[in-house]
Amino acid sequence: MTTTTTPPMRQGPAGHGYINDKDRYLARLKRIEGQARGIHRMIDEDTYCIDILTQISAVTAALENVALGLLDDHLKHCVTAAIRDGDLSAEAKIKEASDAIARLVKS
Amino acid sequence: MTTTTTPPMRQGPAGHGYINDKDRYLARLKRIEGQARGIHRMIDEDTYCIDILTQISAVTAALENVALGLLDDHLKHCVTAAIRDGDLSAEAKIKEASDAIARLVKS
Amino acid sequence: MTTTTTPPMRQGPAGHGYINDKDRYLARLKRIEGQARGIHRMIDEDTYCIDILTQISAVTAALENVALGLLDDHLKHCVTAAIRDGDLSAEAKIKEASDAIARLVKS
Amino acid sequence: MTTTTTPPMRQGPAGHGYINDKDRYLARLKRIEGQARGIHRMIDEDTYCIDILTQISAVTAALENVALGLLDDHLKHCVTAAIRDGDLSAEAKIKEASDAIARLVKS
Repeated sequence: MTTTTTPPMRQGPAGHGYINDKDRYLARLKRIEGQARGIHRMIDEDTYCIDILTQISAVTAALENVALGLLDDHLKHCVTAAIRDGDLSAEAKIKEASDAIARLVKS
Repeated sequence: MTTTTTPPMRQGPAGHGYINDKDRYLARLKRIEGQARGIHRMIDEDTYCIDILTQISAVTAALENVALGLLDDHLKHCVTAAIRDGDLSAEAKIKEASDAIARLVKS
Repeated sequence: MTTTTTPPMRQGPAGHGYINDKDRYLARLKRIEGQARGIHRMIDEDTYCIDILTQISAVTAALENVALGLLDDHLKHCVTAAIRDGDLSAEAKIKEASDAIARLVKS
Repeated sequence: MTTTTTPPMRQGPAGHGYINDKDRYLARLKRIEGQARGIHRMIDEDTYCIDILTQISAVTAALENVALGLLDDHLKHCVTAAIRDGDLSAEAKIKEASDAIARLVKS
């Protein structure tokens, strides 16, 4: 690392903000996938509507929390690096982050 | 299954509200489960954060639409039947529907 | 009232679900209007963005709670009455309630 | 204004992010305040519930759009400046932005 001028991996394959928590994110998605399968089964077994709705709210909230975590990591790493380096893409990165936030707020 | 004497009223006079569209709901949940698996894969393959967020918003919206459909069916069938029959549970059914709506709005 | 064939006041001035809590709803809206005025003042006085956002979230949540209360009252009174009376409009009333719920969930 | 000794940096080098659009934001809040007053009047005049709910959804959406605009400005100016200047507060600023985003998504 000391001999390179620019860290080659900074934003490469291992560069995304969420990389340090990757295993935790994968486990959360695994759980969400299982919850979606559980809702499928509830419908198949004619479960009472309200119980299905409760489960859907839980999955929606879990997905939102994953999104908020990813977004925070993205601001902390990817956007911060672009700004600090005076990267020309910094402005575009903030614009796409704002667009993603709008989609989350409106969905 | 053929020899059991499952009580005919188990699901109310006409079954759950979503019973007529059951296959369509099952197909939608199958697709949502696949989308959740797709997000898992995106994280595993170090996909760019913003693209993952876009996909999460899509799944959240799909889940919300399933919930709104189930709720509409529930009001049209289960709640309507309870009120029409002067069922003592009608008030409780409206209360639990309102609670489910609040969870959806706040999630 | 005893000589009329259809109760003239059923959905008139005293007929909406929220009528019993009208004063409480009016007070809540008064407060929300004051909060909106407060946000206007915060912007005018160059308040720190994040503090304005906190206040906007509070007003949004207050409005949502009013909406959820009105909706619950509407289901309990207006929709229930239409169904119980075998009113032809019952189905349309459920449809418009479901549409209103969808707007709330998506906003 | 000319005789006060207000610290010139009170709002950061370029003031708050929304400073350039201040008049537009003030006009939007004025309109939202008027809409809140309109909802108060609708309740006072016993307007049909569903019409009130439609109006509440409109105000909620208007507030969310103001929040998303302020947040975008905040990221573009305040957060960007803190990161570019190597300001020690940059990390804290991202944390408070993420917290504000979470409140918006969950409200």
